[in-house]
Amino acid sequence: MMMDNLPTTSKSSYLEKAGEFKMKTKTLPKMKPTDVLVKVMAVGICGSDVHFYEHGKLGNWNVTEPLILGHESSGQILAVGSDVTDFKAGDRVAIEPGVPCGHCEYCRKGYYNLCPQVQFMAIPGTDGDLTQYIVYPSDYVYHIPDDMSYEIAALSEPFSVGVHASQLLDVSPGETVFISGSGPVGLMTIMAVKAFGIHDIIVSDAEPFRLETAKALGATHTIDVTKQDVVEEVKKYTNGEGVGYAFEASGNNKAETQALMTLRRRGKIAYIGMPAVDEAPLNISFMTTYEPQIYGLFRYANTYPLAIDILHDNMDLAGKLITDFYTLEETQDAFERTRTAKSESLKVVIYPNEKLRDK
Amino acid sequence: MMMDNLPTTSKSSYLEKAGEFKMKTKTLPKMKPTDVLVKVMAVGICGSDVHFYEHGKLGNWNVTEPLILGHESSGQILAVGSDVTDFKAGDRVAIEPGVPCGHCEYCRKGYYNLCPQVQFMAIPGTDGDLTQYIVYPSDYVYHIPDDMSYEIAALSEPFSVGVHASQLLDVSPGETVFISGSGPVGLMTIMAVKAFGIHDIIVSDAEPFRLETAKALGATHTIDVTKQDVVEEVKKYTNGEGVGYAFEASGNNKAETQALMTLRRRGKIAYIGMPAVDEAPLNISFMTTYEPQIYGLFRYANTYPLAIDILHDNMDLAGKLITDFYTLEETQDAFERTRTAKSESLKVVIYPNEKLRDK
Amino acid sequence: MMMDNLPTTSKSSYLEKAGEFKMKTKTLPKMKPTDVLVKVMAVGICGSDVHFYEHGKLGNWNVTEPLILGHESSGQILAVGSDVTDFKAGDRVAIEPGVPCGHCEYCRKGYYNLCPQVQFMAIPGTDGDLTQYIVYPSDYVYHIPDDMSYEIAALSEPFSVGVHASQLLDVSPGETVFISGSGPVGLMTIMAVKAFGIHDIIVSDAEPFRLETAKALGATHTIDVTKQDVVEEVKKYTNGEGVGYAFEASGNNKAETQALMTLRRRGKIAYIGMPAVDEAPLNISFMTTYEPQIYGLFRYANTYPLAIDILHDNMDLAGKLITDFYTLEETQDAFERTRTAKSESLKVVIYPNEKLRDK
Amino acid sequence: MMMDNLPTTSKSSYLEKAGEFKMKTKTLPKMKPTDVLVKVMAVGICGSDVHFYEHGKLGNWNVTEPLILGHESSGQILAVGSDVTDFKAGDRVAIEPGVPCGHCEYCRKGYYNLCPQVQFMAIPGTDGDLTQYIVYPSDYVYHIPDDMSYEIAALSEPFSVGVHASQLLDVSPGETVFISGSGPVGLMTIMAVKAFGIHDIIVSDAEPFRLETAKALGATHTIDVTKQDVVEEVKKYTNGEGVGYAFEASGNNKAETQALMTLRRRGKIAYIGMPAVDEAPLNISFMTTYEPQIYGLFRYANTYPLAIDILHDNMDLAGKLITDFYTLEETQDAFERTRTAKSESLKVVIYPNEKLRDK
Repeated sequence: MMMDNLPTTSKSSYLEKAGEFKMKTKTLPKMKPTDVLVKVMAVGICGSDVHFYEHGKLGNWNVTEPLILGHESSGQILAVGSDVTDFKAGDRVAIEPGVPCGHCEYCRKGYYNLCPQVQFMAIPGTDGDLTQYIVYPSDYVYHIPDDMSYEIAALSEPFSVGVHASQLLDVSPGETVFISGSGPVGLMTIMAVKAFGIHDIIVSDAEPFRLETAKALGATHTIDVTKQDVVEEVKKYTNGEGVGYAFEASGNNKAETQALMTLRRRGKIAYIGMPAVDEAPLNISFMTTYEPQIYGLFRYANTYPLAIDILHDNMDLAGKLITDFYTLEETQDAFERTRTAKSESLKVVIYPNEKLRDK
Repeated sequence: MMMDNLPTTSKSSYLEKAGEFKMKTKTLPKMKPTDVLVKVMAVGICGSDVHFYEHGKLGNWNVTEPLILGHESSGQILAVGSDVTDFKAGDRVAIEPGVPCGHCEYCRKGYYNLCPQVQFMAIPGTDGDLTQYIVYPSDYVYHIPDDMSYEIAALSEPFSVGVHASQLLDVSPGETVFISGSGPVGLMTIMAVKAFGIHDIIVSDAEPFRLETAKALGATHTIDVTKQDVVEEVKKYTNGEGVGYAFEASGNNKAETQALMTLRRRGKIAYIGMPAVDEAPLNISFMTTYEPQIYGLFRYANTYPLAIDILHDNMDLAGKLITDFYTLEETQDAFERTRTAKSESLKVVIYPNEKLRDK
Repeated sequence: MMMDNLPTTSKSSYLEKAGEFKMKTKTLPKMKPTDVLVKVMAVGICGSDVHFYEHGKLGNWNVTEPLILGHESSGQILAVGSDVTDFKAGDRVAIEPGVPCGHCEYCRKGYYNLCPQVQFMAIPGTDGDLTQYIVYPSDYVYHIPDDMSYEIAALSEPFSVGVHASQLLDVSPGETVFISGSGPVGLMTIMAVKAFGIHDIIVSDAEPFRLETAKALGATHTIDVTKQDVVEEVKKYTNGEGVGYAFEASGNNKAETQALMTLRRRGKIAYIGMPAVDEAPLNISFMTTYEPQIYGLFRYANTYPLAIDILHDNMDLAGKLITDFYTLEETQDAFERTRTAKSESLKVVIYPNEKLRDK
Repeated sequence: MMMDNLPTTSKSSYLEKAGEFKMKTKTLPKMKPTDVLVKVMAVGICGSDVHFYEHGKLGNWNVTEPLILGHESSGQILAVGSDVTDFKAGDRVAIEPGVPCGHCEYCRKGYYNLCPQVQFMAIPGTDGDLTQYIVYPSDYVYHIPDDMSYEIAALSEPFSVGVHASQLLDVSPGETVFISGSGPVGLMTIMAVKAFGIHDIIVSDAEPFRLETAKALGATHTIDVTKQDVVEEVKKYTNGEGVGYAFEASGNNKAETQALMTLRRRGKIAYIGMPAVDEAPLNISFMTTYEPQIYGLFRYANTYPLAIDILHDNMDLAGKLITDFYTLEETQDAFERTRTAKSESLKVVIYPNEKLRDK
């Protein structure tokens, strides 16, 4: 199936500068033989998008020219290049937002997330997909099941972080897990570790609403960091032993330090939250007595098929994470919602084409 | 061979309190069937011994009663218990100073260094072996080659730290290594990583004498931290890439932070130095872009046979590490030397029985 | 709670020689301070027990003196030695049948199943527990939940094989599994890999009854080896790719060869079935093109807490595996049943004390 | 530096059919922007080349059209495509003979040797490089040191097998190694495991000349399989324990079975020799008591930089492996020599351009 009149331009929401979006039309590039043309159906807003919106920069990246944000997305294929055999027009797909060079040592060793030349959506220099259509390498789109909504398919991006972390830590049954912070990434890590065979899951946050969602997703114990001491609570819950795996997903400075101390001897921790400030105190004395392992994480690689598979097994739970729905024209409202409503909103979705859901 | 008149007491050097040693005679315990009686021939002084000597405490451990220090040692077996078949009187051995419970989860999983009940020499509650004779479980003494001196055999303890770190990081050929700090542990880590197939080794320190020794042991590049920037120098030496493995062996706060930043993407670092202060700033932004792995270390497990084997292959180099020689009666002088002569002294050895070397 | 009149003898079912059991009374040994006295409540019969019963030998082991068989068991503690703090009289426990030396290299590295000196129940030289009471080291008994029956607790022994195999192969979500053979070990491996996050499970056997049970336990596809080609069926089910993990649990010679060929590139296979004959043809050409990994297995180590935990989560499913119930006096009937009724019987349980179930 | 008159054709040695080579001129393809044009300087002959020469086929591959053999090679770059930045005309390089698709799951996970679409030199459908010039993707050529000869650089291909095997088995110091068979691959595995920190190396073969070379390369013990029992000898040399790692490099059926039995408990073995027949008996009883791990291997991935590095450290030793030197016109003589002189010849080299050495 090949659509008759393929679009050559795409209505897009550009971040003009910090705090200001503007609708403009982008001319689509010519498709290469290995490309697909995708109609973008749902885009989730990530904390990094909001950071660019608020500050016009993130770390060393500065928005010096108008930039299309958005990198958590799904869509429908409208056309495929002449060399593409895995996809056809009409196929529903999730879109992986990073395209590595494919040639460097990291790419060839399987760590393509660490490719120094990776082109990642919504990082200055590479447009994201808060836009109607994109031309994209077919290697980085993935089939989704017929019964999976586009909104949930878009979650495969943030969910990939939890999957990658679980794989990196080699999560295996028989240990208790602590997840520090229950924003969307922390909450989805609950789903990830459950899929890796974990039953006992402790989750912390400052927002009661998020802790409630954590419980709904499978947390067996929650800690309100405004009232309880994290390390003390984790130790109490584990009979003084500590957890086998911890995931720091809050980015909060104090939490970054405390999360390490929740580990048992030879425990492992992954830092997956975007850090609020560059440095957090590391307890070296703990390091040199408990023999823990700390894993840094940068995005993910080779996770999409499994992420989609696990999401498919947990569509009801995953659905609880998506709380707000906007059109492309409402981009600014969507970002304001994400920025301000942490006590009642989780994942906010924007529809670059038809609006699929309201609530 | 069983000695006729076995000793029942042992002249010992007790730390009475911070700053004060006193020679006293200890009554030896009765041997169990699995014990051996060892004449202690050489004991190296460790930084932790000196810390107890200076402060009367180390971390949470306090010297509240007279304590025999010393845990890097070798000796000759005088007698063996009735169940001991691997050893006989006359055998020359290295002595592993920690005796785990053998029953807990950590012991049974092979991480006996993490046994919460481990009895470790020269930690308050367990005497060390700055004493003439010890009764010791035969499981924790190891044969040494005929041509290995007792002084070098005693190095198998601090060297085990480098071996354990190399095993934990799974050091494998083809990467550059950075070792932060060239005290005895850092210097011995040079020997360890060479034995694991590493050729390119960068070592840093503030003491020219120690950097010279590092070169003699195989360092291919040295950094004088008083004059050069560590991260910059490592990057320059590795064409901007960074190292595959780093070992922080200085315990210095600034070094602890910098060492991480010398890593390449997916690099690994081990913290093996006794930290000067509890906390060091951890660069979380680096963690969440370079995807490094940080390994805490606590002593070692199952390292002695390999440590002795590598030392045996490098006896000339290992010999360069042993710079000073004292009798048991000169314990205080030996500790003062260790404490004050960092610019010309490395490992100081005490002979609890006959003095074997002078220089 | 300490029973007033502790038993000093134990009624036992001895295998006198191939094909013949005899009830005799055994005098219990004196308890050591670290021992517990256990009233044996349920004992499952294993294929190796039956092999001894039929042939009077197994591999190099020969029954030259009367031997108590049985090593899959659970019971209640009647008394504990003076050094035992983890257990008290009245506690319900599963019993791990192997006691390693605790001193050799394998024990100290965490591979205690490979201890050359291990004392394993029902291997000539070490009695099993088809007996009323045993005196046993407390290190090798494990608490079971209040709501777990003794019969299911006894399954923790054969189930440990599947858990150990899953740990050795590092089973992780996202792959399809093939299990060759659906006797009790194969069937329990279904439960194990599900607990490790696997969804797609193909199981083969020659007995329709066992394939039905496989489906009840979670197999998503079954292969009747009397009618279908195993490799062809697995390839068809996996779109020509092959499986990520395979477990050969039949011991059948042809199956041992075929199971390897079901793997995808870089797939892993574990041989967990007792081999019918010593050698099976290994396809070296497959080895040198698909780069698979083959893992041999010998029993298990450090698996009991996790095995009990997973069984507890699956008590209904585990219950389907236990089909027949006998008293100690009926030992011979129980063995005949195990030996002859493969088309309708799975795990046969013997009660050395009171009979707890009939059906 | 760009040569003025670049060649557009290449004199080549074609295998017309089994047993017959013919010199013909091949028209070079047009260079792509990422390609390099290489003047081939040295090509080693591999057992697989000889197999094609003798039988016109290898496994399922049949030579139905004239095919250029040769895939162990090095050369000098004559020109580079417009996108190539890592190389320039005049550069000396080793050439990796397999070019994977770069897109499949295996490529993206870092196992590009397992890419089902890999184009590998001298496999029917893809010409090898017994030819003067090749146009080749720059991703698969590697700089060699100035002081490394082209002959030794060509060894980086067969040596990669030993490096890949050492990486796959995670060879680490402290174990004894057994290498079964001392043809070029077995001999080079001696160099590989030494570089990974192994000292004790046992090598077997039937040819005294090869065993002598094994000793010259670092074998500490050799076994003449015509006179000695392999398993018995290995056990004797290791005090009854067996080896930690074994490499089966002979392809001999009996050796394939025996090599497994030389392992200690939890030992690992890699099958790296081209099997003489498809199947070898696997001792399942050994598998289910010693818990060994068997690794299949298919070529290598990501090994060239390390292989070149280790060869560079061992140029004198590596030189002992190259025994015979031919021109392109003498291809048939070179193959006859390889085929018939196993008792005095090791690696035979052909020079497609100027002859660089005679002896």
